[in-house]
Amino acid sequence: MLRAQGKAVHQCDNGWVPVFVDQEQSISLMSVGFLLENPDEAVVWRGPKKHALIKQFVSDVAWGQLDYLVVDTPPGTSDEHMATMEALRPYRPLGALVVTTPQAVSIGDVRRELTFCKKTGLQVIGVIENMSGFTCPHCAECTNVFSSGSGEELARLAGVPFLGSVPLDSQLTRSLEEGRDFIQEFPKSTAYSALTSIAQRVVHRMSALCS
Amino acid sequence: MLRAQGKAVHQCDNGWVPVFVDQEQSISLMSVGFLLENPDEAVVWRGPKKHALIKQFVSDVAWGQLDYLVVDTPPGTSDEHMATMEALRPYRPLGALVVTTPQAVSIGDVRRELTFCKKTGLQVIGVIENMSGFTCPHCAECTNVFSSGSGEELARLAGVPFLGSVPLDSQLTRSLEEGRDFIQEFPKSTAYSALTSIAQRVVHRMSALCS
Repeated sequence: MLRAQGKAVHQCDNGWVPVFVDQEQSISLMSVGFLLENPDEAVVWRGPKKHALIKQFVSDVAWGQLDYLVVDTPPGTSDEHMATMEALRPYRPLGALVVTTPQAVSIGDVRRELTFCKKTGLQVIGVIENMSGFTCPHCAECTNVFSSGSGEELARLAGVPFLGSVPLDSQLTRSLEEGRDFIQEFPKSTAYSALTSIAQRVVHRMSALCS
Repeated sequence: MLRAQGKAVHQCDNGWVPVFVDQEQSISLMSVGFLLENPDEAVVWRGPKKHALIKQFVSDVAWGQLDYLVVDTPPGTSDEHMATMEALRPYRPLGALVVTTPQAVSIGDVRRELTFCKKTGLQVIGVIENMSGFTCPHCAECTNVFSSGSGEELARLAGVPFLGSVPLDSQLTRSLEEGRDFIQEFPKSTAYSALTSIAQRVVHRMSALCS
């Protein structure tokens, strides 16, 4: 998505230098993908090895001064999530942004993730629903591919803010596939207004949590 | 999906009795979900505990005589996958059915899963592409929400059979949400013919692998 595949991680005196994805160096990135010799290689690692690497990604990367550190985790509540929490605890992470899709099975998973946040004392910034309905580019009718409103209901039941829904949008998915700048190219698409309003709510909510 | 939530697992002399989902007892089911007191509880388990439970699901459940044992794993190549392979190895598992979605990020994950199968000596029954395009119920036009044909391309590159694509179909997703019998109720839906032809190919391919 960030056109960073195949880039290399270098070493400096302070550790690994993260990969910069733009010329302004406004986004720096670290991923196990950069450390593999072959991108198709399966990372067949048990928990302890994952724990060690996640710890290194926090302590041994020369991140420099950051405004935000975003950790994109796999679904579930497993080694990756525990290791991330343990590694970040000294830095007092602000909170979790919990993304669901409208299917009942996904809602069940995410409900358990909210329980995990509670157990580990991590605040929830809010819930976002992804893949919420599809607007047909031929007739402009919107169809709920899955059920609707379940992300909002989930947030209500858990007593955490609901930050918005992102519709299925083929302009967005294709931009991500091709590493193109969706925000620049498709300001009129259905997903654009959804994403910008969610981004604003996230920033507001984070300021509220900080103060 | 199988309307089995909240059912209880009982003990017999041969171990745990799996949950039967239909009156004919044609499908029996075992899941960590049945063992939790609260379905919202997060299963915050490290690898060794997962390994032990997966092993128990193979050895300590009174499965009886089975035609097929289907293990539905999470995405990735981690403890769950290694534990399943280790527990089933003595029973010589027939192969892996690998499901992808058309997005480039998903294809990357699945490519690593195919490498995992190769490493662990597990045959690949074939690749199935899920969420392949959406047929608008209003105008009947089909749109590729993501890119198209990437599951087939992936199978070709890996030298394994491609078994078919399942379109996004709101009749299917709603049947799954509500635990209804999709095959009985929607024989004319777009996903129906896709699923039945994939099922036939799976059975053929498995007979070929057995002989």
